[in-house]
Formats: sequence, structure tokens, C-alpha cells
Amino acid sequence: MRILVANVNTTQSMTDSIAAQARAAAAPGTEIIGITPRFGADSCEGNFESYLAAIAVMDAVVNYPEPFDAVIQAGYGEHGREGLQELLDVPVVDITEAAASTAMFLGHKYSVVTTLDRAVPLIEDRLKLAGLDARCASVRASGMAVLELEEYPERAVETIVSQAEQAVHQDKAEVIVLGCGGMAGLDEQIRQRTGVPVVDGVAAAVTIAESLVRLGLSTSKVRTYATPRPKTVIGWPISSAQATAAPAVQPADAAR
Amino acid sequence: MRILVANVNTTQSMTDSIAAQARAAAAPGTEIIGITPRFGADSCEGNFESYLAAIAVMDAVVNYPEPFDAVIQAGYGEHGREGLQELLDVPVVDITEAAASTAMFLGHKYSVVTTLDRAVPLIEDRLKLAGLDARCASVRASGMAVLELEEYPERAVETIVSQAEQAVHQDKAEVIVLGCGGMAGLDEQIRQRTGVPVVDGVAAAVTIAESLVRLGLSTSKVRTYATPRPKTVIGWPISSAQATAAPAVQPADAAR
Amino acid sequence: MRILVANVNTTQSMTDSIAAQARAAAAPGTEIIGITPRFGADSCEGNFESYLAAIAVMDAVVNYPEPFDAVIQAGYGEHGREGLQELLDVPVVDITEAAASTAMFLGHKYSVVTTLDRAVPLIEDRLKLAGLDARCASVRASGMAVLELEEYPERAVETIVSQAEQAVHQDKAEVIVLGCGGMAGLDEQIRQRTGVPVVDGVAAAVTIAESLVRLGLSTSKVRTYATPRPKTVIGWPISSAQATAAPAVQPADAAR
Amino acid sequence: MRILVANVNTTQSMTDSIAAQARAAAAPGTEIIGITPRFGADSCEGNFESYLAAIAVMDAVVNYPEPFDAVIQAGYGEHGREGLQELLDVPVVDITEAAASTAMFLGHKYSVVTTLDRAVPLIEDRLKLAGLDARCASVRASGMAVLELEEYPERAVETIVSQAEQAVHQDKAEVIVLGCGGMAGLDEQIRQRTGVPVVDGVAAAVTIAESLVRLGLSTSKVRTYATPRPKTVIGWPISSAQATAAPAVQPADAAR
Amino acid sequence: MRILVANVNTTQSMTDSIAAQARAAAAPGTEIIGITPRFGADSCEGNFESYLAAIAVMDAVVNYPEPFDAVIQAGYGEHGREGLQELLDVPVVDITEAAASTAMFLGHKYSVVTTLDRAVPLIEDRLKLAGLDARCASVRASGMAVLELEEYPERAVETIVSQAEQAVHQDKAEVIVLGCGGMAGLDEQIRQRTGVPVVDGVAAAVTIAESLVRLGLSTSKVRTYATPRPKTVIGWPISSAQATAAPAVQPADAAR
Amino acid sequence: MRILVANVNTTQSMTDSIAAQARAAAAPGTEIIGITPRFGADSCEGNFESYLAAIAVMDAVVNYPEPFDAVIQAGYGEHGREGLQELLDVPVVDITEAAASTAMFLGHKYSVVTTLDRAVPLIEDRLKLAGLDARCASVRASGMAVLELEEYPERAVETIVSQAEQAVHQDKAEVIVLGCGGMAGLDEQIRQRTGVPVVDGVAAAVTIAESLVRLGLSTSKVRTYATPRPKTVIGWPISSAQATAAPAVQPADAAR
Repeated sequence: MRILVANVNTTQSMTDSIAAQARAAAAPGTEIIGITPRFGADSCEGNFESYLAAIAVMDAVVNYPEPFDAVIQAGYGEHGREGLQELLDVPVVDITEAAASTAMFLGHKYSVVTTLDRAVPLIEDRLKLAGLDARCASVRASGMAVLELEEYPERAVETIVSQAEQAVHQDKAEVIVLGCGGMAGLDEQIRQRTGVPVVDGVAAAVTIAESLVRLGLSTSKVRTYATPRPKTVIGWPISSAQATAAPAVQPADAAR
Repeated sequence: MRILVANVNTTQSMTDSIAAQARAAAAPGTEIIGITPRFGADSCEGNFESYLAAIAVMDAVVNYPEPFDAVIQAGYGEHGREGLQELLDVPVVDITEAAASTAMFLGHKYSVVTTLDRAVPLIEDRLKLAGLDARCASVRASGMAVLELEEYPERAVETIVSQAEQAVHQDKAEVIVLGCGGMAGLDEQIRQRTGVPVVDGVAAAVTIAESLVRLGLSTSKVRTYATPRPKTVIGWPISSAQATAAPAVQPADAAR
Repeated sequence: MRILVANVNTTQSMTDSIAAQARAAAAPGTEIIGITPRFGADSCEGNFESYLAAIAVMDAVVNYPEPFDAVIQAGYGEHGREGLQELLDVPVVDITEAAASTAMFLGHKYSVVTTLDRAVPLIEDRLKLAGLDARCASVRASGMAVLELEEYPERAVETIVSQAEQAVHQDKAEVIVLGCGGMAGLDEQIRQRTGVPVVDGVAAAVTIAESLVRLGLSTSKVRTYATPRPKTVIGWPISSAQATAAPAVQPADAAR
Repeated sequence: MRILVANVNTTQSMTDSIAAQARAAAAPGTEIIGITPRFGADSCEGNFESYLAAIAVMDAVVNYPEPFDAVIQAGYGEHGREGLQELLDVPVVDITEAAASTAMFLGHKYSVVTTLDRAVPLIEDRLKLAGLDARCASVRASGMAVLELEEYPERAVETIVSQAEQAVHQDKAEVIVLGCGGMAGLDEQIRQRTGVPVVDGVAAAVTIAESLVRLGLSTSKVRTYATPRPKTVIGWPISSAQATAAPAVQPADAAR
Repeated sequence: MRILVANVNTTQSMTDSIAAQARAAAAPGTEIIGITPRFGADSCEGNFESYLAAIAVMDAVVNYPEPFDAVIQAGYGEHGREGLQELLDVPVVDITEAAASTAMFLGHKYSVVTTLDRAVPLIEDRLKLAGLDARCASVRASGMAVLELEEYPERAVETIVSQAEQAVHQDKAEVIVLGCGGMAGLDEQIRQRTGVPVVDGVAAAVTIAESLVRLGLSTSKVRTYATPRPKTVIGWPISSAQATAAPAVQPADAAR
Repeated sequence: MRILVANVNTTQSMTDSIAAQARAAAAPGTEIIGITPRFGADSCEGNFESYLAAIAVMDAVVNYPEPFDAVIQAGYGEHGREGLQELLDVPVVDITEAAASTAMFLGHKYSVVTTLDRAVPLIEDRLKLAGLDARCASVRASGMAVLELEEYPERAVETIVSQAEQAVHQDKAEVIVLGCGGMAGLDEQIRQRTGVPVVDGVAAAVTIAESLVRLGLSTSKVRTYATPRPKTVIGWPISSAQATAAPAVQPADAAR
């Protein structure tokens, strides 16, 4: 079984770390392929970057040259999963939903600890749409940006543990969900410090994707996620259209 | 890995069929043990029977003599899962929740097709408490009693397919969940007839239980599902207290 | 009119105190019969004990030898009321719902003050299922165990008043509900200290049960609470099956 | 104990019939006083009439010359209960809420059958604000205007039974609530025809008001329903200000 | 285009200030007419006063002698808008809804800062019924009474800013709504101090009313807001019935 | 005042018709600029196309060379509005929300009539996230694809009117919202046929955008819609990166 694990940003080292994390959770015989978008931001911390990532992930997946059995979208709280489900016949698992869904088997309420405060409403919105918010006690921000997690691992653990403890004691969470693909590997430390189960979305998503494949289940095509109707689409896939040009890295200040 | 799959009623042939279904979904190396309660109704189709089953399943599980890694409660829409979570340190997976959780990865809305109309509110209540109802399009009854499913398999398929079709066309379900442990093996036929993915709760629960065990995750013990406080409990476990007597099968008319 | 008031635990002194409280609220001509389960825990503070109580209460009620006009289940936040409704033709009133329902006539929002923190999610779940949670400001725990309420009455008042005050000032509750059958008699003290109406569930349930009987109303039998279908039920009623054996008090450590 | 039962419209015969209904439900020793507003519409079937009734009921109650122990607002789905609660120290019971609250002890879901379709959203809104809508299966209109109920009693029964049957079979209601003060006395016929319990709001309200008085409970005054602050109010009470003039019956076409 | 802006209380200076505020927001060519009820309280801070205002505003509007194109009800969180919609063919805009609706275009969550704590539940209820509460982070009280806002403008700013800051930092509001018609003109100061957009309901309502008129849209008359049915209404309009008498200002202590 | 009205698809004639519709609703002095994405599908009828449109609209807007005062996203039920809000300092108005928000001033419940059934869940999800779903009676599909609306105008009117009538009579909608930017100009016909107000999202959005500009209000920048943090973004804006290449129109079959 081959599972594509799509990073949502363009930072290759993060793709590598996510893929490693996925492999650690995978069953024997599951091949994990980490893929990196060809365009977009080096980290996703807001709607613009997330929408761009949504398209960049779809672009990367439809350009992947080999057959695969499932796709994991490995960005926490990001847009785009529904588009992948339309474009593909194989199961698509978003780590936001995989983690929430798994946490709900472990305790009465769960909390998410994520990176920046501005990401909190995105995550809350994703959980609400997914219908997985009823038992979410809180979504809390550690205040660490995505790329700072790797740069300052000790501070990352401290701030995440601190928020996790507040989630358990004040918000009455019984399970903690790590709300960022870049928090891979922190789960054991946080579990020891808080005494509650800690769910990593990438690991959870791998087991769910494997399960769906094994059960022969995939996305329903009768309505919402039906294959796109045949129509004229200009400039798609993006990266093919861009390929003949030389899309230099742009030190973008994204706003006008 | 050893997983106990607990039937909620006292019909041994149903335990066998549920266990077979679980084995078909299990990964290599997973041992499935079907267990049957020592007391209770031969089928569960209401609250009295379901509450009795809740205690009978706990009784059967705590009396099981060997170690195990996870428990599946294989009754659809039944009471009791929270009690098992308190009594055990290993993961507990209810098929009602396992099926809903799985269905939500496959389509925008799902419907449950169950047995008798009187079971519908129980299932709706279980999904509501589990926080898995937001994307439930409907819970529909086929009108077949639990034990009739085995007796009249052809009629069972017809009535279940008919309700599934109405769920898809009228209620806009994109996935069908089989709402009874006794519907094992009907999924393929129904998928062919309706064109939508069909989720069997027992199969879904097996993969989820395996995943939790593999990820080293189990029930949070900090609050709701903490181990019961030490106290005087009269007559527990029930079956030990009953054992010295000869608890004959009682042709019970359950009401006073 | 004869009303059975069922304690949910096996502590006879608590049955007596609940029955006394019920008698104080009863109209002239209403006979109150306190009944104690024949098995189960000496106090209910979690799901295992509550599920066991559910069955034990049903067992006690169906074994009661005389006719009666209504049943009150006098455990706050416990399982089982739906089963009683199926088994009986007379009205069944749960004190959790009676208290909430009464509080809603008295203020815009109410809070429940209960015993241990671990009971809070059970109560929240019961109110949610009953559809009586929309105007619940909070469920707060005093930290006193059920049996400590009798043992340390002064401390009980202090901790309950303290939580009630926080409910009023922080959570904006306008009415306090006493969330434990064992809090009988504390209402007046708490009302004096907080200045808000205090609802005791047992008293509220008595007046509701009397009202239903007087109005000639009882449980609807058309669907959810229809009488159980005739079927083979092994070992029921529990206490009859156990009767021929000698069910010794077991110093149970409930977990395996 | 003296209970004021306030009709919401100016039709004296309806006050009489509501009072008779209240007396039939009252305990021995309860005195029922029917009161009629001094201004307003001869029947309430919309927001304008209901708002006018709200003020007219408050006007009638504050002008009532004798002491009383509780007030029942006997209009189904009408505005104004919160104002009465501010103005009075005794309990106030609205029949909309009394009926819903009572119905919820009798079945899993209830439906309301009311008069005109235009009244349905008012009732839905009242139930929503009261937090009593979660278990409301539907509010259905018989199409009969309030004053037609008395005029065409046979047709009234037919249309109400017809809607009640649809509520039971299609909407899965297990209890029917009569959604108009003018439906007094129809409950028995409808119960016979539908087989489900039928709740009349006036009767339910009487028992609830009696219970609150007996339990020594009344409206919380700490926040929402605190007594109005002392201030200059022009033209209040309305009827006193009008009394010196000769407020002729106006054949009002209410719109401009 | 002529728009009536109805004050809900009888304080003429407040009508003037509301009208001035409306004029400042109005497009060229829009005529703003401030109207004051002929009876009722000099400020509305509770349900009794609000219900009286509801009728007094309807009375003032139906007595207004000239044609007009829209009506704004300029009381925050007050009753009565639905009655006006029945009585009129032109659009009716409530400032509570206008402000919330506008705020939702500006940020993910908004908070309302109002006057007294006792008004908070009224506002919450209005937003709930209007279906505009899902993105309301909080309703907060400054503790200033309506008439104190004019008397102590500096303190008003301080307390309102203080609550607005807590709304932004604790409740995560991104927009502040001024929850009182008497807060006109404070928006700029509060915006400077909090850094978030501040919405004044009167200004918002003016632009919405203008827009509806320009688009040729008005209240739907097919159901909820249909013109009242022709019937006998005693004493309506109130002020005409009172006119022949001399309705002296009554130093009302509103309660009995 | 200059308002950009962004079509979400690449069909220029649709941009023209949307712009014309916007101009018809605009106040004197408002300049309407229709803009067309440089890439994406010729019509949006699903998530893939909608996500691509989200990015294409952002791309078109940030590339627009002149200053502007507000942006309208003129696709019904599409993704992307939150990204625009981050990228811009001027107000952003989505027609989905503008129409719902306007409809809620006109009736108790509204329904949306859109194009294809597969678009219904997208619209429901957008309304849910916007917190504007509580008074949505239904979202109904006419079965006409976006581009068929122009091609078969008569059939379009028939099918839309038919669904609108069912919305009014069965779903109890009191207002109809046209759920597609391409339904411009149908509102008058549908209003005549159904007798209820009909809201066109583009017209509604124009008046709301104008109002926000006039009131000096724009997107809150304190949290969710803060300007993106400075970071490396590869390949953005898309169209600049693509410009040096020749992005031919691709007869895309979008799926892999």
C-alpha cells in the first residue's frame, strides 16, 4: 500500500519530518511518500497561505507520476481536503479530522494546542464544518510560529505543555491533540507532563488511511465529492503552466 | 494483539457471526475473541434490554480470564461503553461511534439504516452524546427485528436497500452505515445496489481498535473515565453472585 | 396516591433521608415509599456504578409487590430512566430532569452544584439528552463525595455555597439546582447565602409526579418507551436469580 | 392558594372557558381567578396582537385588587411572560412552557398542534428562547382560527386530530401538545384518536404553579427578572390612564 | 427617501441625539425623522419597559401622519420589531440586528458592549432569535445606566473601553458593537483605544434601510409578518384612546 | 467610490453580466469594475473549481493596478473570502453572505435556490461557517448548470420558480435568495410568480460594500484576518509567474 503524505508548505525539511513521523506509525508493507508543493508559502499560518496550499497540494498530487492508494493532507486546520476528494478516487484523510476523530475515542473532551493565535479560528472553523467540534473543549495557541518549532524545540515543548495543562485543568480536556504537522515527536514528552493521551494527527491519519484502504472504502462520488464535470480550465495544473517559465522564489510580501 | 468483541445479547450464533466479521477485517496477527454475556436478552431492541446488556457486557469482560489489548462493544446504539472505559485500562471502541467516525471520512453526510423503528431514538441519542450527529442525515428503520435478519436474509437485504436508497435520494446521505451488529455481510450487496460506500461498524471498530493499540493510545483516566473509586459494591460481578444458583432461562415478559 | 422513590445506591440511610425529603414535599394523601436496590454500589459517582444502579433500580421496582402510581428515580445525573419508562405504565420522573425543568420557570439560567468533578460530564450528558441544557449556565463540583455530605455537613454547606456563589457571579446563574440526592435539606441554607432560588430535585420530582398522576398523564407507548417485546431474557430479574445464592457483600475493587 | 389565570385576548367567554379548565385541574383549596385584559384584540394570532396582549396582561395583573400567589399566562406562544416576572414577586407560568415541559416527561419527542400557520413561527421562537425546543418534533397548524375553535367544534377536532396523526406518524412525535388556550377540552378526544398522551397547557400550568407555591419557589430577582428600576413611566398603567376617557371598541383594521 | 427613526423611550433629548447620529450616516437625499413614543419609560432597561416600548413605538409609528419609506427601531435589544413588520408594508430595521449583521462582515467574532448587566440576557435572546448569535463572542455590560451615559460621558467612555478591551483580549472579539442607542458618538474613541472596528447600530441601520428601499425590497407578507387579520381591537391605538383623558406623567414604581 | 466585483470563473460574458447587475444596484458616484480571473474554470460547480477560483480571485485582485475601496466576491457559495480579507485593507463582501444577511431583514426564514445539486453542500457549509444558517429554511437545486442559465433562460426561470415555490410552501421560506451569480435579472420574474421578496446577492453586496465604505468600516486586523506574516512564498502571484510562459487553455479533465 502506498500513501502520499502531502506537506502543505514548501519547506522540504518539514516534509521529511512529517514523512518520518508517518513511517513510524505505518504498518509493515505501507510505503509512505512525502510530497512537497511546488509553490506556496514556507509555512501556513493564515487563510491566504492555506488557500494557496490547498491548490498547491492538489497540484502536487495530480502531478504525482505513480499510482497510490490514499492521500494524507498533513496541514493542521488547512483548506483543500474537499478538492482532493473530488479529484481522486482513493481515500483522502486530513490530519485535523483524523486527530479529532481519534481523540474522541479516548476521552470525553479534547483540546487542540496549535501554533499562533491567528490559526485558532481556522482550526475551529475546520472542526465545525467537519462536525467534530461538539466535544472540543478548546483550541489553544502556544504562540510559537510553525518554523520556530524546529528552531527552538525546548521552548516549543514548554509553551505547548503549558497550554496543554491549562486545557486539561481549566477547559476540562481529557485528551490533547497536537495542532500542527510540525509538532511531530513532541507527543511523548507532553503525555508525560500532562498525564493525558496525546494525539498526533499524522500518525492518526496514517492508521485511518490504511484502515480505509484495507476495508475497501473510499470517497462517495454521488454528490458533494463527485468528480468535477468536464469543462475548460485555464492554467491547470498550475505547476505545468508555470513550468516553462522560471518561477523564481519571490520574497513575497503577500499583501498588495 | 488480542481484541475482545463483545456481543450485547445472549444469542451465541450472533456472537459467532460478529466474530467472523471482525476476523475478516482484522490485520494479520490480530486475535479476535467473541464473547457472549451470561445474562440478558437474546436481542437488544430497546432501553431495558440495552441497559441490561450494558451491565452484562461489563460482567463478561471483567470475568474474561486472559489479558487482552482492546474491547469492541458490538451492539449498535447501545448503552454501556462509558462503564467499560472506567473499568478497563485498554481502549474501548463502540461500533456505533466507529461506524459514524469512519463514514465521516467518506462523504459529506451519512445515514444509518437499523432494525426496528423503536431503536431509532436510541441511536440518535448515542450519536448526539458522542458528538457525531452533525453530519448524520438520518437514522432509518428497516422494520426487521434483530433476529429476523438471520431468519429472512433476502427480505432483510430488500428492506435495508430500500431504506438506504431513500436515505441517499431523499435525505442526501452519501454514505450508509449498517446500524446493527447482525447486518454483517450485507455491506457489499447494499453498496452494489445504492452506489455509495457502506460502513459496517464491526469492521470499522476492529481497524480503529488496532490503530489505537498500535499508536499506544488508550482511554484518558483524568476525569470522566477514571477508575471507579474503591467502595462497597454488593452483588458484583453479577454472574459470580448468580453462579452458585441455577439461573434458568426465564421466558420473561419483561414488564411488570 | 402511592409514589415509589428509588434510591440509586445501596445505602439505606440515604434512602431514608431521600424519602423524608420527598414526604416533606408531598401533598396530603400522597404515600411515599423509599426503595433501595438489592445490589450495586453504596454511592454512585461514575458510569460503572450508574449503569449498575440503572439495572438495580429496575430490578427493585419490578420486584416491588404492591401497586403504585408513579416512580421517582432519585439519583442525580444517573442512567436508567428510559428503561423504567419501558417497563412501567405509570409515570417515571428523574430528579435530574425534574430539577432542571423546575429551575427554568424561575430564572433565565440555572447552574447545578454537584459532588465530585468526575460526575460533571455525566450530568452534562443527561441534561443534553433531555434537551434541558440550553439554559444551563454550568455544572459545578463541590469536591465532596456523596457519602461525605452526610459525614461532614458543615464542610458540605461551605463548599456547595462557594460553588453556588461562583455560579451566580461568574456563570450568571439565577437559580441553583442541588445536584445530588444526598443534598436534601441544604436548600434553605444555600438560598439564604446566595439570594437565589434553590431547587432540590427530589422535592421537584414529587410535585411533578403528583401532577402527572392527577392529570391522568403517563409515558407514551407508541415508540421509544414501548413495552419491551416478548423475548427470552436470561437471569432477569437479577435479584430473583441471585436470591437462591448468597450474594455476600463484596469488598469490590470494581476494575479488573 | 389563589392563582390568576390571564386570558391574552378580550373575549370574555374564552376567559371563562380557560378558567373552567384551570379549575378542573386545580387541587382542592386552589382558587382560580380568570382575568381578561381591558384592551387588545378579541383573539391573538400574530405579533402585533401578541405584543399588545403582553402589555394588556401586565396591565390587568397589576390592577388586580387582591393578593394572589401565582399567575398563569394562558396564551399559547405569546409575548410578555418576562415582563410579568419583573413586575411580580410571585411565580409566573406561561402555558407554552408548561405544556412543553410536561410533555418532555412523557415521550422522547413532542409536537404542538396550533391554530393558524402564521402562529407557528411565534411558537417556535418562544420554545427556542425557553430552551425547550430540542425535543420538539414539529409545530403544526390546523388552519382553524382561534375563534373558530368554539364556533366549529367538530371541524376543530377533525383538523387537530389530522395534524396530530401526521405529527405522530411523520414527525415521530410521541406526545401532542394543544397549542392554543382555546383548545380546552379537546385533549381526551385527541388522545383516543391518536393513542398518545395529549397535554393541555392550562392544566399543566395550574399544577406547575401550585407546585412552585407549595415548594416556596419564585422568580429569581438577581438579574434578568429583577424588579424594574424606579423611573418615570408615562401613561402606565395603560387602563388607568385610559379610564377617564371612554375607550370605545374600535373596529380596528390594525395596519396603518 | 424618508426614514422614521423611533426612539424606544420617552426622553426627547435621546431622540434628538439618535436622529442626529442617523443623519450623519444617511446618504444625501435621505430625510431622517426622529419619533418619540407618547407613553412608556424614560429609559428601557428591562423586559417590562421594553414590552411597553414595543407597543409605544408601534403606536407612534401608526400615528405618524406622513408617508415614509422605512422604519428603524432604535433601541438595542428591545422587543417589538416583529409587530412593526406586521403593521407596515415598508422595511423595518432593528438596530440590534443591523449592528450584528454589519459586524459580521468585519471580523470572525464580535462582542456587544451594553449598559446594565440586566440587559445582557435580553440582548442575547434577541440575537439568538435573529439567528445572529453564532459569531457573537460575548455581550458585556459597562454597568452604566442608559441615562448615565449622557450625564457622565467620560466615565462612560472609560467603562465601555474597558469592557471592549476585555472582549477583544479575553473573548477574542474582533469587532465591537455599541449595545445602546445612547452610545452614539463614542465609536471613534473606542476604535482608537482598542484598534478594532466599532459598529454603531443606528448608523448601520440607516444604511441597511436605505439599501432595502433602493433595492425595492420589503418585509415578506406570506406568513410570519402578514398584515394582522381584521378583528376587533379594543383601545388601539393606545394614544388615541388616551388622548381625550389627561395622561399625567406618573412617578411610577412599576411593580405592584 | 470604486468597487471591484470579482467573477469567480473565467467566462468574460458572465463578468459583464455581473458587473451590469452591480451597476444597476450601485448608488450614483459608485464605479463598478468587473474583474475576471486569469486562470481557473469557466464555471464553478464544486470544490476543486472553487478552491482554484479562490486563488485566482486573490491573484486578480492583487494584480489590479488601480486603487479601489471595496471588493465583492461574486460567486455564490465559493471559497476564498477570508484570504482576500487578509490580503486587503478595504472591505470584502461575499455575495453568499450579503444575500443571506439581507434576506434576514425581510422574513422569518429564507431559502436559497441554486444551480446543481452538488453545489448545495458547499453553500450550506458557507452559510454555517458564516453563522447565517439558523434561519435558512433550505438550499434547493434547480438542476441547471451555471452556463446553462444563460443558454436556456426560459427553462432557467421555470425550474428556479418551481424550486422557489416548493421552498415557500414546503420549507416555509418567506424570502428567496438567488444562489448563483449567473441568475442576475431573474429576481423580478420570480418575485411575481412566488409573491415573496427575492434577493440577488450581487445587488445586495453592492449596497453593503457601499455602506461599509461610507461608514468608514473595514476588516478587523487584530486576529483572523491580520495581514499575512512576511515569509517566502514561491510562485505568487500565480499569474505573474505564469506570465512569461504561454498558459494555453487546457481542455482539462480535472481528475487525474
